[in-house]
Amino acid sequence: MSTTRTINLKNRPTGKPELTDFDFSTSVIPELKEGELLLSTKYVSVDPYLRGRMSDAPSYIPPFELNKPIASGVVAEVLESKNSKFSKGDHVLGMMEWKETQVAKADGLIKVDPDKAPLSAYLGVLGMTGLTAYLGLTEIGKPKKGETLLVSGAAGAVGSVVGQIGKILGLRVVGIAGTDEKVEMIKSEFGFDEGINYNSTENMIEAIAKACPDGVDVYFDNVGGEISDAVLFNINKFSRTINCGAISVYNNTEQPKSISVQPFLVKKSASMQGFVVFDYADKHPQGIMQLAEWLGQGKLHHTETIREGFENIPQAFLDLFEGKNKGKMVVKI
Amino acid sequence: MSTTRTINLKNRPTGKPELTDFDFSTSVIPELKEGELLLSTKYVSVDPYLRGRMSDAPSYIPPFELNKPIASGVVAEVLESKNSKFSKGDHVLGMMEWKETQVAKADGLIKVDPDKAPLSAYLGVLGMTGLTAYLGLTEIGKPKKGETLLVSGAAGAVGSVVGQIGKILGLRVVGIAGTDEKVEMIKSEFGFDEGINYNSTENMIEAIAKACPDGVDVYFDNVGGEISDAVLFNINKFSRTINCGAISVYNNTEQPKSISVQPFLVKKSASMQGFVVFDYADKHPQGIMQLAEWLGQGKLHHTETIREGFENIPQAFLDLFEGKNKGKMVVKI
Repeated sequence: MSTTRTINLKNRPTGKPELTDFDFSTSVIPELKEGELLLSTKYVSVDPYLRGRMSDAPSYIPPFELNKPIASGVVAEVLESKNSKFSKGDHVLGMMEWKETQVAKADGLIKVDPDKAPLSAYLGVLGMTGLTAYLGLTEIGKPKKGETLLVSGAAGAVGSVVGQIGKILGLRVVGIAGTDEKVEMIKSEFGFDEGINYNSTENMIEAIAKACPDGVDVYFDNVGGEISDAVLFNINKFSRTINCGAISVYNNTEQPKSISVQPFLVKKSASMQGFVVFDYADKHPQGIMQLAEWLGQGKLHHTETIREGFENIPQAFLDLFEGKNKGKMVVKI
Repeated sequence: MSTTRTINLKNRPTGKPELTDFDFSTSVIPELKEGELLLSTKYVSVDPYLRGRMSDAPSYIPPFELNKPIASGVVAEVLESKNSKFSKGDHVLGMMEWKETQVAKADGLIKVDPDKAPLSAYLGVLGMTGLTAYLGLTEIGKPKKGETLLVSGAAGAVGSVVGQIGKILGLRVVGIAGTDEKVEMIKSEFGFDEGINYNSTENMIEAIAKACPDGVDVYFDNVGGEISDAVLFNINKFSRTINCGAISVYNNTEQPKSISVQPFLVKKSASMQGFVVFDYADKHPQGIMQLAEWLGQGKLHHTETIREGFENIPQAFLDLFEGKNKGKMVVKI
């Protein structure tokens, strides 16, 4: 019987996750049944939203089970196929377990072409990351040419794509990030008009006002917390906030507090709306086509932080919360 | 020369407004020019949003000027007309100054018929109050039959109409108010399914969960603050919050803090949107027709607290912040 290395959830983290919350085990690879594929993991996506699935609080997707494998977006190669739609040597994208080798049903897997784009791009700009950026910005942000778009977590996987799409759509784009290097990168590599380093800025309210002299029309929020508090003071009438993530408070053990948003929303007839890419599944095919077109035209740049080695998946995940990634973080197996 | 009593804004209130922030003066009634009307004030509307205009912070309408008359919704009788569209004895509705007698341009005034509805109703259920309830609920709340609607400030002018419209539209309607008497009233007079007295409830999160066993789909929020914090724990996936007012924090002198809404919005793909009735002017005529139809059919009940006497306008306004009104508060002159 063949076996494979597997990464399980050992403990539900309290606050910040730690390496000890993960557990490596060896599991048996079951025999392939009709319709199934034997897959070799090539790239694993690590994403902030996985933190939510490690808790057992109700959320938009069910929690991971303790002592069972963690799962995330994976690109894998087909080693053996008992499904007529896939052949040995094909590459597939889907939600798979953190295993080096695994058997999976073919439903829900998408064939991806390594000649059209690097395999890792299907976990990023052409995958959930790109779709989150594109659909969040267009479906909820409804930006109009000439408006000002502010992006928090701007150097991250989603934020860096949001900013680039903002520029393609004719917006003034301002990004917030945590180091001078990242601020420089979002301007030089991703074409943001302005950047703010929140770690070296004393008064964020004033810094945003200065970087957004016409106010903020659309705020793509990946972080929540104090940065988003400061944004409230700069929103325009009818502004739209896309609440895509709140990484700054995901590890809080107490209920986080912020400035009350209600008076700002009332004064400015403004909106805030939570966005989860899974809710927009009917728009994914069109979104991927649009993103692939922009990528092909060279309008969209694709930045990744690639770690290597199956055993380094947990650390790569933890590093997301330290902002150690630029663009999409993936692990190459 | 004739004169009239006038109420001016004397000081910009810090925190809670006080009687000493208002000033009574006698002003000259100017001569009537072509196109103008001489008007005798009959009913004056006092509304929480006027608190905002007493501050000089930027908001959706310009602040009142110091030592100038305050203005609000007024129903007046035409004493003399130099405008062909209005005759002596007509009643008009519009934004007018707090004066017993005044000269006004006819633009922006609407003729109202005392035989169709009591004059005070044009300041309430058939005026801005009714339109706020109807358009806020339908345009932003987008309720679907069978959903659960939760209303804060449920015994107030807007809240009591929101709840009744909710019942007309086939929703389960739960209201939050500040006394047992008010809770009884929203159920017996306005047909709410359930009511919660926040002043006698220790755990609002649990009380809302109990009153809304299927969760909250639409939250019509007139109050903000801690009550709205508790609602967050009970919202359903895709819930919509109409941020109509935040009376609980209007008098705060420090920036009010609340539980961070962002993680809840992300988890639930939920939205919050500020609503100001003035933004929907194109929908007012249709809204008034709908409200008048329901009122005529006896489906909509109209509750007012009527104070008497021009000199009592400031106190009536202050009493809004103590919750001393049931339904719409107006002052009869």
